[in-house]
Amino acid sequence: MPKKNAFYAQSGGVTAVINASACGVIETARKHSDQIGKVYAGHNGIIGALREDMIDTSQESAETIAALRHTPAGAFGSCRYKLKSLEENRAEYERLIEVFKAHDIGYFFYNGGGDSADTCLKVSQLSEKMGYPIQAIHIPKTVDNDLPFTDNCPGFGSVAKYVAVSTKEASLDVASMCESSTKVFILEVMGRHAGWIAAASALAAEEAGDPPHIILFPEVPFHEQDFLARVEQTVKEQGYCVIVASEGAQNPDGALIAGSVTTDAFGHQQLGGVAPTLAALIKHELGYKYHWALADYLQRSARHIASATDVEQAYAVGKAAVEYALAGKNSVMVTIERCAGEDYQWKLGEAPLEKVANIEKKMPSDFITRDGFGITQLARDYLAPLIAGEDYPPYRNGIPQYAKLNKVAVEKTLNTPFDI
Amino acid sequence: MPKKNAFYAQSGGVTAVINASACGVIETARKHSDQIGKVYAGHNGIIGALREDMIDTSQESAETIAALRHTPAGAFGSCRYKLKSLEENRAEYERLIEVFKAHDIGYFFYNGGGDSADTCLKVSQLSEKMGYPIQAIHIPKTVDNDLPFTDNCPGFGSVAKYVAVSTKEASLDVASMCESSTKVFILEVMGRHAGWIAAASALAAEEAGDPPHIILFPEVPFHEQDFLARVEQTVKEQGYCVIVASEGAQNPDGALIAGSVTTDAFGHQQLGGVAPTLAALIKHELGYKYHWALADYLQRSARHIASATDVEQAYAVGKAAVEYALAGKNSVMVTIERCAGEDYQWKLGEAPLEKVANIEKKMPSDFITRDGFGITQLARDYLAPLIAGEDYPPYRNGIPQYAKLNKVAVEKTLNTPFDI
Repeated sequence: MPKKNAFYAQSGGVTAVINASACGVIETARKHSDQIGKVYAGHNGIIGALREDMIDTSQESAETIAALRHTPAGAFGSCRYKLKSLEENRAEYERLIEVFKAHDIGYFFYNGGGDSADTCLKVSQLSEKMGYPIQAIHIPKTVDNDLPFTDNCPGFGSVAKYVAVSTKEASLDVASMCESSTKVFILEVMGRHAGWIAAASALAAEEAGDPPHIILFPEVPFHEQDFLARVEQTVKEQGYCVIVASEGAQNPDGALIAGSVTTDAFGHQQLGGVAPTLAALIKHELGYKYHWALADYLQRSARHIASATDVEQAYAVGKAAVEYALAGKNSVMVTIERCAGEDYQWKLGEAPLEKVANIEKKMPSDFITRDGFGITQLARDYLAPLIAGEDYPPYRNGIPQYAKLNKVAVEKTLNTPFDI
Repeated sequence: MPKKNAFYAQSGGVTAVINASACGVIETARKHSDQIGKVYAGHNGIIGALREDMIDTSQESAETIAALRHTPAGAFGSCRYKLKSLEENRAEYERLIEVFKAHDIGYFFYNGGGDSADTCLKVSQLSEKMGYPIQAIHIPKTVDNDLPFTDNCPGFGSVAKYVAVSTKEASLDVASMCESSTKVFILEVMGRHAGWIAAASALAAEEAGDPPHIILFPEVPFHEQDFLARVEQTVKEQGYCVIVASEGAQNPDGALIAGSVTTDAFGHQQLGGVAPTLAALIKHELGYKYHWALADYLQRSARHIASATDVEQAYAVGKAAVEYALAGKNSVMVTIERCAGEDYQWKLGEAPLEKVANIEKKMPSDFITRDGFGITQLARDYLAPLIAGEDYPPYRNGIPQYAKLNKVAVEKTLNTPFDI
């Protein structure tokens, strides 16, 4: 059987460790050069495949590929581009197969969230129908931790650690200032529909009464009076109050607390503004001086404070994707399974893509305290091991040294333009 | 001569390394226990002295005091409370002297910025007039880097490192997304009147064209059309544009770009909102999709990514304050002096407090490029060594372990309430 090449692409919002998965894919493929040809990376994700715009990773040194392990964001470029359904735009899928055929690609490794799991599935199904079978393996990635069938998602552990560490540090700051100045601090974090990231802030607390004092989840309807009462009570008891709010926190009628809403290419709403809205409410109703922060991209790109567990798992799912492909598997997502027992141990598994696609995993209700403002011991036990361990990048002159790729383009053989 | 006790207090906005200065003071005083009695720390800064509310640091173990070196924020509590002028409220100064006398305090170590240098001076002057001489030494601290006579201020190097690292990481994120999504990213950083912190973001750039592409300083009037033209040009050339904006950036008429303004106890305006204002402008005029972040307290409390140089200097100025006092000095601020030569070396010096108080050091004009959007090589040479080196705190279960004090109160001997 002649060796087939592999295609790898990054999809959706990037993370601090998605390149560690790329590193796992490429290093493992190189180790199996008897069975796999070159790894071509989509330039800007799946858009690169549609445009026949790919990066030849074989032109990168072993050192550069190894450096991907400690490099945040998407080194090959990612994209927010959701393929339409087969019925709506079959031409897009046919184009993908055409490009893969032209470049002798037999393996499709797609590194993303729920939407890309769906794309991955369709590529596999259609390629078979078109008589050019491609093994499609989905490599999980999302800071939102909302993929089903996997215990957790690579990318989440690092944003969780960033949020927990930042909450701890900013809380010490507020505690220092509260006697004569700032009494309330609000940190707005990512999480449109699931409160996993906000929940992780609770790991900053080591004893009862420790901040964060209030967490707002998208899963729990926001009741203004309950919230204000808790803020006031906390300031009276602790001298200050630290609040961590999911961007997707919403009122009982389902309207977002954040005022302004725009929509991205996936049809997702782009949010922002929970923190200033809450700050204004508190100032108006309680009169407390406040500060607030919006971490935005800083939280998901913070490779400098990545979780060692997360880095290890991100690498492992990339490595496993190649091994699964070589074992003949197809249309599966690599999963992380938590082993039974008190000490945290994990192993890899798999889930069929037709079950994964387009399902969002929210926080279980028994992870949230009855008052809706905190997490339970069950949640803490789940979250704690995911942020364990530090994995520092190398520094030069005080600045982390991240991988710089040559990005040599794969020569086009089709050379036909494709409008997206 | 009988041993006198020492008073130490933290003032104003805290930093990632002000506790390293506290550590330097207390450890050095303990080494000279033949000459200095106990170190009493003001609970919540100078307010603690006025209220006779002090923490007996002799009740803390050597391990706890050592841990202050890697603990952010103000472990004894800080305050935003500016003593009025002698003419306006002489009673406050007399109260301080009364408290110091009651607790046999002969050394006054005040750890803060320009305002506290002024307080430090007045305490020294008045105590002499009142026949109870106190040696007052000012220990510099401010993330704003705006104190005169010192080459740099402890606290600045760490916020500078945080901003440079965060800018580098977030820029990689935007670069990954820009083909089909976010094209502009704005990071708003501290700096009311001086652009030092924003300037430090430029250290993220290692080659021409590297982000950040535009920096907005309070020192440079903001011209909307020039700014928009540069954003558009950058997006066309680089595919994306990263902007770092000082909170104090202002229009040519001196009005702040940020809309909402409140005023704190020092009469300082509390700002916020440059980033969303710029984002809305860019969206409206150029139509680019944007993201923005507001680091707020996260930047000044980020001990996890502190500059090793900054930590070392913060400790050294605390240590030197005690040594200067023992050498009979009074009414001085400890300064950091940069030695001549290509490799960065520094030593400690001193400046008389009457010259330090209430002067703000802005960015020199030859530190800012002619177009007003970047920094010169001169600025880069000045800034680079200040963020050099990493100094990681210890971690347990993925969370940094910061000092926890017993905070045993010094027994009150006056026991007279004092309204502040």
